[in-house]
Amino acid sequence: MSKEALGRRIPVLEVFGPTVQGEGMVIGQKTMFVRTAGCDYSCSWCDSAFTWDGSGKQDIRMITASEVWEELRQVGGSTFSHVTLSGGNPALLPQLGELIDLLHAEGVKVALETQGSRWQDWFHRIDDLTLSPKPPSSGMTTDWDVLDEIVGKLRSEGRSYSLKVVIFDEADLRYATSVHHRYPGVTFYLQAGNDDVKEQDSSVLLRRLMDRYLWLVDTAMSSEELKDVRVLPQLHAWLWGNKRGV
Amino acid sequence: MSKEALGRRIPVLEVFGPTVQGEGMVIGQKTMFVRTAGCDYSCSWCDSAFTWDGSGKQDIRMITASEVWEELRQVGGSTFSHVTLSGGNPALLPQLGELIDLLHAEGVKVALETQGSRWQDWFHRIDDLTLSPKPPSSGMTTDWDVLDEIVGKLRSEGRSYSLKVVIFDEADLRYATSVHHRYPGVTFYLQAGNDDVKEQDSSVLLRRLMDRYLWLVDTAMSSEELKDVRVLPQLHAWLWGNKRGV
Ligand code: SF4
Ligand code: SF4
Repeated sequence: MSKEALGRRIPVLEVFGPTVQGEGMVIGQKTMFVRTAGCDYSCSWCDSAFTWDGSGKQDIRMITASEVWEELRQVGGSTFSHVTLSGGNPALLPQLGELIDLLHAEGVKVALETQGSRWQDWFHRIDDLTLSPKPPSSGMTTDWDVLDEIVGKLRSEGRSYSLKVVIFDEADLRYATSVHHRYPGVTFYLQAGNDDVKEQDSSVLLRRLMDRYLWLVDTAMSSEELKDVRVLPQLHAWLWGNKRGV
Repeated sequence: MSKEALGRRIPVLEVFGPTVQGEGMVIGQKTMFVRTAGCDYSCSWCDSAFTWDGSGKQDIRMITASEVWEELRQVGGSTFSHVTLSGGNPALLPQLGELIDLLHAEGVKVALETQGSRWQDWFHRIDDLTLSPKPPSSGMTTDWDVLDEIVGKLRSEGRSYSLKVVIFDEADLRYATSVHHRYPGVTFYLQAGNDDVKEQDSSVLLRRLMDRYLWLVDTAMSSEELKDVRVLPQLHAWLWGNKRGV
């Protein structure tokens, strides 16, 4: 196989579904998931660290867009018409454009979430695009120039997209407020963070997640700076805890 | 006061918020609620029967659009920019158009849900409009001619809106599937119904609601007829149980 063809392969860690999207702008959507490997960040509370910390390395498969499509059909049959590209950070992969086109040709819509640290031209072809810059608690630093550029490109095409910030504490909420004001008019989601991605007792986790969500709701409701916002939990964590592949 | 001016008054039962919208197309949205009195239906499982069964009669106030706006400001201060008109069936009230225009003039977006049994010209001015026809378990019968006409008018204006069906059982799901196929391309929500609007123990209720939601998710996920759907719970009932005014 030529080097070029090899270059078009996608590092895939998981293909699963259909299940409901648990968060953000298409919460509740029936969707398949394709999880790619690799991230340019290393957030302290990452709930999919196996995509980048080496622990999932043996599960990475380098496959083509058509092989991904075959696998989606194998796993999901004819029950779906929506696919979510998840990571890691799928925006590291220029070759995802091919998969997106193939999915569209099959009548399938495509959602993607990325932290907004890298641009790809295929962003314009994502049906449900979420930029989710990471707040201080992640330990990461936002490159505002890059994020401004990405937002500028999306705006110039009139593409609809949303912003989402995961919130763990007051400092995160201040960060979110500044993001909201920096990009006015963009649908803006606050998401209660899961501060214990190891807890295996799902009822203990549920209680904790509900408390964190209620705190975020209370705080956002009383704020005059956060008016036009949407506050959501991670529904899948409420339902299935910290399990993978659901 | 002249009879005409009196005619423009709105029967208001509750003004509360801000809180999060618990369901449907703007789930999570920070919003104020204005609940109007009166419904042309009497669904068996109605969670706001006090709006039409006489039990809330003494709380109905006939107030003008500007009085509603004053009250919204009194209750919600400067913390909001979104208002949900709720009922009962607000679509019984032609005079709501005035309130909608007043809210828009104040920079406030307006959401509304109705079963789709009556048309009002102000539907065109609703920012987040949900038609929620009632399935067999409600005991009500859908007038398809009226619903077709409403959908047709919305479509001709290119207005975005969504459909939502509350599901209690298999028959409801068959009804929902037929609605989904009758109006293809419209964002379609399945909502797990709350079959016990009297349960006061919120943890008992939560367990039951989660089970009903998981049943609906499982059923919808395996269906080939329900591909492009969104399956959601009633988030507010999970959080606050059957309490009013939250
Ligand atoms: S950007 Fe996302 S995938 Fe990457 S480390 Fe952070 S949370 Fe994990
Ligand atoms: S249409 Fe809505 S408000 Fe009217 S009876 Fe049915 S559930 Fe209750």
